Amino acid sequence: MSLVLDPAAQDLLFREARTANSFTDEPVTDEQVQAIYDLVKYGPTAFNQTPLRIVLIRSDEARARLLPHLAEGNRAKTAAAPLVAVLAADNEFHTELPTLFPHFPQAKDVFFSERPVREATATVNAALQAAYFIVGVRAAGLAAGPMTGYDAVGIQKEFLDGDHTPLMVVNIGRPGPDAWFPRSPRLDYGKVVTSV
Amino acid sequence: MSLVLDPAAQDLLFREARTANSFTDEPVTDEQVQAIYDLVKYGPTAFNQTPLRIVLIRSDEARARLLPHLAEGNRAKTAAAPLVAVLAADNEFHTELPTLFPHFPQAKDVFFSERPVREATATVNAALQAAYFIVGVRAAGLAAGPMTGYDAVGIQKEFLDGDHTPLMVVNIGRPGPDAWFPRSPRLDYGKVVTSV
Repeated sequence: MSLVLDPAAQDLLFREARTANSFTDEPVTDEQVQAIYDLVKYGPTAFNQTPLRIVLIRSDEARARLLPHLAEGNRAKTAAAPLVAVLAADNEFHTELPTLFPHFPQAKDVFFSERPVREATATVNAALQAAYFIVGVRAAGLAAGPMTGYDAVGIQKEFLDGDHTPLMVVNIGRPGPDAWFPRSPRLDYGKVVTSV
Repeated sequence: MSLVLDPAAQDLLFREARTANSFTDEPVTDEQVQAIYDLVKYGPTAFNQTPLRIVLIRSDEARARLLPHLAEGNRAKTAAAPLVAVLAADNEFHTELPTLFPHFPQAKDVFFSERPVREATATVNAALQAAYFIVGVRAAGLAAGPMTGYDAVGIQKEFLDGDHTPLMVVNIGRPGPDAWFPRSPRLDYGKVVTSV
């Protein structure tokens, strides 16, 4: 009763949504990905830095280059997924800050002149955006299969550059037969939340 | 048309939701926080590691200890927010993995025996959960005011311990008068998403 979000939306985004390990053949279109992006781009990040970048693996050739860099247990399902997305953090996001954070354009130089600082904040804020993206995939009626079992250096070399750090690889599509394992337990509220 | 999530829910969670800088006096109850947690705890993390921990700043005494560690520009709004939450990553999350990831209880030792590995993955996965939490605050009809302008060592010493890393501080409540700045721009789809 404490939530105002419609119960069907709660189920769609969190309660019934699951990490999928198999998918149907139904394609995921660029229009769907754009609709997802145009929703979740509004999720907040520090200084509105929005460092997430997404590479859609569309061609057979690109997918063939991706698979060897994945952990063996992730290859078959990724080979069969309708769409695969490489999510990465842009460590040079600060070049966009004068546009993204117009009420304090000096932020670019005041806070983000040092690369290690940028890398740390880009990782955290791209992770926030990756979570918004997963929620957005579900908002499109699709299932996401996020994975971190891969050779990050290999994926960076194949699909990114030295300024972009891979964060996760996400399979996307409609869930197929036996798409998920039984739901694993979550920690009780009292173990996670304390008051002072 | 590509999204199946109800447009009102899209607005509630992303399009009309904004980072709030002022709040009404209406309290945020423990029941609301528990409802938020019990929704967003299902958001996916790697190995279901769910490393996010939350400290609710409930007492006047605790709030007085928090404020000096915040950037000056964040103090007045945090002093006035109905509820303030410190979000942190538990770098010893692996002790819970035999419960959280029951189909491969060895994961604790196979993948997470080294502290630097745990710190890196706990930061990223707690950030995913922080984003789910922000979405959950909005699902409760409340506004979130996430902040990263603070002295992390000071907050860690006051409210956490050496095994927990602060990730952000979040003001929570119903938005008050002039609660937000004009919406800052977002990057165009073509700047963020590429296909190969």
